[in-house]
Amino acid sequence: MPTPPTADFAAGLTVGFTTEEYAARIARAAESARAAGLAGLVVTPGPDLVHLTGYQPTAITERLTALLITPGAEPLLVVPKLERPDAERSAGAGALRLADWTDGQDPYRLTADHLDPVGRYGISDSAWAMHLLALQQALPASRYRSLTEALPMLRAVKDAAELARLAAAGAAADAAYGGILQVRFAGRTEREVAADLAALLLEHGHSQVDFTVVGSGPNGANPHHEAGDRRIEPGDTVVLDFGGLKHGYGSDTTRTVFVGAEGAEPSAELREVHETVRRAQQAAFEAVRPGLSCQDIDRVARQVITEAGYGEYFIHRTGHGIGVTTHEPPYLVEGEELELVPGMCFSIEPGIYLPGRFGVRIEDIVTVTEDGGRRFNTTSRELGIVS
Amino acid sequence: MPTPPTADFAAGLTVGFTTEEYAARIARAAESARAAGLAGLVVTPGPDLVHLTGYQPTAITERLTALLITPGAEPLLVVPKLERPDAERSAGAGALRLADWTDGQDPYRLTADHLDPVGRYGISDSAWAMHLLALQQALPASRYRSLTEALPMLRAVKDAAELARLAAAGAAADAAYGGILQVRFAGRTEREVAADLAALLLEHGHSQVDFTVVGSGPNGANPHHEAGDRRIEPGDTVVLDFGGLKHGYGSDTTRTVFVGAEGAEPSAELREVHETVRRAQQAAFEAVRPGLSCQDIDRVARQVITEAGYGEYFIHRTGHGIGVTTHEPPYLVEGEELELVPGMCFSIEPGIYLPGRFGVRIEDIVTVTEDGGRRFNTTSRELGIVS
Repeated sequence: MPTPPTADFAAGLTVGFTTEEYAARIARAAESARAAGLAGLVVTPGPDLVHLTGYQPTAITERLTALLITPGAEPLLVVPKLERPDAERSAGAGALRLADWTDGQDPYRLTADHLDPVGRYGISDSAWAMHLLALQQALPASRYRSLTEALPMLRAVKDAAELARLAAAGAAADAAYGGILQVRFAGRTEREVAADLAALLLEHGHSQVDFTVVGSGPNGANPHHEAGDRRIEPGDTVVLDFGGLKHGYGSDTTRTVFVGAEGAEPSAELREVHETVRRAQQAAFEAVRPGLSCQDIDRVARQVITEAGYGEYFIHRTGHGIGVTTHEPPYLVEGEELELVPGMCFSIEPGIYLPGRFGVRIEDIVTVTEDGGRRFNTTSRELGIVS
Repeated sequence: MPTPPTADFAAGLTVGFTTEEYAARIARAAESARAAGLAGLVVTPGPDLVHLTGYQPTAITERLTALLITPGAEPLLVVPKLERPDAERSAGAGALRLADWTDGQDPYRLTADHLDPVGRYGISDSAWAMHLLALQQALPASRYRSLTEALPMLRAVKDAAELARLAAAGAAADAAYGGILQVRFAGRTEREVAADLAALLLEHGHSQVDFTVVGSGPNGANPHHEAGDRRIEPGDTVVLDFGGLKHGYGSDTTRTVFVGAEGAEPSAELREVHETVRRAQQAAFEAVRPGLSCQDIDRVARQVITEAGYGEYFIHRTGHGIGVTTHEPPYLVEGEELELVPGMCFSIEPGIYLPGRFGVRIEDIVTVTEDGGRRFNTTSRELGIVS
């Protein structure tokens, strides 16, 4: 897929899709809405709007911006007049009609005029409640469902151009991991190592760093720990979970390393826990194929860990989708019966967390192909050794 | 109000309120809800939750976090189990009961169990639509209004400790303006000057820079322009609008400067436009007193500009509230009849934008006192001259 070689693209700031590509995505979304029996879609700023138009307002505020997609009608972007110039500059704008409103006017009335008063609509998951409530009030007989519930495949299945960008983001994150294995851990704080990780992601073409988790020793046992002032010691186990956006698409990978400085050696327990997580991740990856469900993959990973006796220490779901954000539907979690389809992309990231002691997590981004899973992260999943 | 001298506070990362202060705010919110005939409040991550508890999750995601405030009952924070440790560390946690949920469980069922099935609730403006829809589905007879509509005064009226922080943020932004008057404009890009502004805000104690608008020449005529690659020239008019957070509270100020390098002099037209905006800002400021409405202040500013013949070029509202964010209710806009009350804080920022030529805007943060308005920005509002 050709990408315009602009300075912004080189800097990773834009995704480089054409107006035609956005028009095709909007047409597919309209067709999906029709097939799902919806009167249309109400898309607000955030990943849905980026996916469908390439447009991202400078800030997401109380001023309503909404893309209305109605099967059989031209897509319409309702936008504050002040922000119209920005919207017009987006690559997708050529595929849309714009309708602006000025401070003091009622944007919900304007929007409602373009909706079916008794229609059922899908609305972006992260649309502000105040906007939804105002639409419900303007059209009391209209009905809404979250887009993820109504059209779970809207952004979940990536096209070839998107897969190429996710692969590139994954390769960049892998290069960052290669770099971090070379830096000193012992005697430095988590925050310092996290700053190194962030710099490496930027160096390898990311335009945005979303997270750089450095969970050393007992901090690794809190899967939500980011990076703090704890000074890393020889003999520590360290969870490294990092990612961001490159050319508008996400990376997210986790490896667990051991600080082998001053002759420290991994304990037998660490080796066993790490090997259990590695086997769980491998088994889940090997299970990926079209037709299985999201929860099936979670169950495969969980079974390996449970059978090894660590089930109670695997305290989160197995994975999440990735695309124009680093964290989105679908979720690999018990209860999610959504079927795997070629082009779907998600993390597989089982972990074991021993409270007050240490944690281990291994994570790759995986895409579903006709023949099974394909990894976008390919660095060694063995226990890394750092100094 | 005493503030704990922690390293985080010194670095501007925390607001330094005590558990008792958060408990008092929650009690006031519960009382306001009761007085407004609401069964309670559903507060999701964002400024409302920061204001009431000091808690801000690392990321705002599809995993439900919600503070339930019910008059007469203990406040309850529903939180994903993974994020519970973070929530427990917040200063407000001591005033709350926590209820956690694990991936695979239904957080809406858990939440609904604590809500009145036929109750009317206020919900955070920026709560995700998917959460609101799930609550509406779990309790079909429950009713919701946005918090700004239901309790417009919840965050709009600041207490003494908050006013002190807003004043400090304003003083820091003023110091940054003093610094930017000393840097070279001519021959440099907007982006370079914007980077200087950001560095100055950080140098003066901001922990976060939200925006650094540098709108030079024709770019100044787009009030939504941020900063681009345009190279600033002698004779340019430049709109500088910048702000962020210091100790968790916002700054936001605008001054318009003229690039007097190489003997350039402001035109008579620029002087007239700038003086018109200055008079409009001054008149609106002088009009501030308890009992007037938000739209009254907008009308005062607009009248000055309209009478000078520039009414069609003042294309936005006169101002917005400020607090734990740099942009929040109340809005000084036609149609907003909310009454001014002592402790309310907002921007007064009229502007004139001559398409394709230049723009002028002047903005101060103002708080309402018993005796009238008090400015948190006190730098000269005359046309600044830079080199």
